[in-house]
Amino acid sequence: MSHPSQRLDEVVHQRVRLGILAVLWEAQRADFAYLRETLGLTDGNLARHLRVLEEAGYVSSARVLDGRRPRTWVEATPAGIRAFEEEVQTLRELLPPVPPAG
Amino acid sequence: MSHPSQRLDEVVHQRVRLGILAVLWEAQRADFAYLRETLGLTDGNLARHLRVLEEAGYVSSARVLDGRRPRTWVEATPAGIRAFEEEVQTLRELLPPVPPAG
Repeated sequence: MSHPSQRLDEVVHQRVRLGILAVLWEAQRADFAYLRETLGLTDGNLARHLRVLEEAGYVSSARVLDGRRPRTWVEATPAGIRAFEEEVQTLRELLPPVPPAG
Repeated sequence: MSHPSQRLDEVVHQRVRLGILAVLWEAQRADFAYLRETLGLTDGNLARHLRVLEEAGYVSSARVLDGRRPRTWVEATPAGIRAFEEEVQTLRELLPPVPPAG
């Protein structure tokens, strides 16, 4: 049987993108500014990682006017939710089953 | 409080290196060929990732003669064990607490 690390998808596993998907998995959708603040990113860095996730079909985004202020809403697609849940399962196989001693 | 994804260490989190450290955490030490087979890597790819881990002080390796056959033993240093255990803790904070429905 292959080691679980071989089944990790780099698109999802990368640190920042894993953070984005974890937030979206829990929140259903989030706006760009909320993701940026929550994850401690710059605009450029968040935009770059969102583009990788969009190109993989894992998130979609929509720009809307909230009053006169433009907001960009981001949500995980069904494929993105599935990919995140597969990552979670694979990490559960890979990581030690008991919490390490502090 | 910062999102746990901000505390992930890229040296440890990267897919292949996480696999290497998971094997070494469990096995104490492993030889190069065993790591290569278990993780499904090429010689060059394994060597490259071991070098990153060695430069961070997370693994050490020793070349020994086993009969007339040279073997390279690799083990995690105390700093490497600590870094892996911190990764495990951080991922536990980041990932959903209950297994997602299949």
